[in-house]
Amino acid sequence: MLEIGKIAIIGAGNTAYTLCKLLKSKGIDPYCMLVRDAEKAKKVSEDLGVETVTDYEKVLKTDLAIIAVNDDAISEVATHLLDYKGLAAHTSGTKSAELLNRTMRFGVFYPLQTMSKNREIEFEEIPLLIYANSPDDVEMLSRFAGHFSKKVVFCDDEQRKAIHLAAVYVSNFTNVMLGIGDKLLKENGMALDLMKPLVMEMIEKSFEISPKDALTGPARRGDFATIGEHEKMLADNPDELAIYMILTDYIIENYQKK
Amino acid sequence: MLEIGKIAIIGAGNTAYTLCKLLKSKGIDPYCMLVRDAEKAKKVSEDLGVETVTDYEKVLKTDLAIIAVNDDAISEVATHLLDYKGLAAHTSGTKSAELLNRTMRFGVFYPLQTMSKNREIEFEEIPLLIYANSPDDVEMLSRFAGHFSKKVVFCDDEQRKAIHLAAVYVSNFTNVMLGIGDKLLKENGMALDLMKPLVMEMIEKSFEISPKDALTGPARRGDFATIGEHEKMLADNPDELAIYMILTDYIIENYQKK
Repeated sequence: MLEIGKIAIIGAGNTAYTLCKLLKSKGIDPYCMLVRDAEKAKKVSEDLGVETVTDYEKVLKTDLAIIAVNDDAISEVATHLLDYKGLAAHTSGTKSAELLNRTMRFGVFYPLQTMSKNREIEFEEIPLLIYANSPDDVEMLSRFAGHFSKKVVFCDDEQRKAIHLAAVYVSNFTNVMLGIGDKLLKENGMALDLMKPLVMEMIEKSFEISPKDALTGPARRGDFATIGEHEKMLADNPDELAIYMILTDYIIENYQKK
Repeated sequence: MLEIGKIAIIGAGNTAYTLCKLLKSKGIDPYCMLVRDAEKAKKVSEDLGVETVTDYEKVLKTDLAIIAVNDDAISEVATHLLDYKGLAAHTSGTKSAELLNRTMRFGVFYPLQTMSKNREIEFEEIPLLIYANSPDDVEMLSRFAGHFSKKVVFCDDEQRKAIHLAAVYVSNFTNVMLGIGDKLLKENGMALDLMKPLVMEMIEKSFEISPKDALTGPARRGDFATIGEHEKMLADNPDELAIYMILTDYIIENYQKK
């Protein structure tokens, strides 16, 4: 079924774990996983039921090496793959594919998802952003990715970096907003759970009709009485107040019907 | 079934529409809806299949009047209810219940949800925050609300205002983050839809394990190289850059493991 041959996964973090599970979900066993630390390698092997190695000997025999390590460690990994005949693809949202350009065949295999070792994810819904430095490898990687995801997107470095930046807003910063809500509720003896139906409905609506059209609230209405009252309520939370003010101004400048 | 008797809804906006549908979903027809503008009243009657009135005569015969008007219009409505014998409850997240204190029996009936005229909402999931100025009316309103929602919460003014403020962060400001993501993706020829699995997974994770524990990303990791690159990419978007900087600083100050 899989024309791609033997696959190595390099790394032992959240992404490496998730990718290993991704492969296994389709009955594909990685040929090996490279984990430098011997003790950690043993644990990974037990956790995932794969062969782990601590040096590159077996990796060099594979057809695809997925480099799922921290951004800062990609270059170091690349030094071990100078004579690699397979396709070396990193999984970073921000790093250029060119970081691997001393390898003959290189690319990117970037799953657009937040990953945790212990959470089950519906793989088919995760967009896989791919890139390779030759049309043949693009096609190969695209077919490979298509086994796992309904959404395979070819992206160059610039597009992938824009997606990664956008993801900081829609995922990390959105999370911060939930965190502030959590804090304000706790200060008043209540719990964030109360907010879940509101948040889910707003998110659904935003994706359905666009965030701009889905926006409600005092800033959107230009309700300065409520804004003033909110700012007074935040007197003891100066950091949260500063965020309230900058985002309220942003809405007034950018979102109000003119 | 419903001990509460006749119900009037005052208003013709998103909340009034949603509350009318809420009642009808349980087979309860509002006794009347008050819509001051005669033409609008006709449309509301057609839209919702209820009797609409333009003056307070029939409203004064009801047992519960739900005042679903703009915050600024609540006081004006109250002037018509000075001799009202029923329970007058407004639906505002921010206004004090005391705004209605010239009526003998007053309270609040606040559905914690973003409302649109044309969207179907699962009412049972919407928290209903209630308040009344007598224990009997608290109990009555609580039983009434319990017909519609699995989550009825008694809240005083202060708690309700804190919830409303928290809702600005978790709903409105979260929406702004999606809006910025949308903008950045469009500038690079891509669409926000790509982000939906990421956003949904992050939200689920935040509610499950807490926003703080669910946070990932460059600021959380203290990855200043990526932060620097992102800030460079935002050079042509000064407003979005300012938001990036303040939220990144907030994460570094408040969320990093110490």
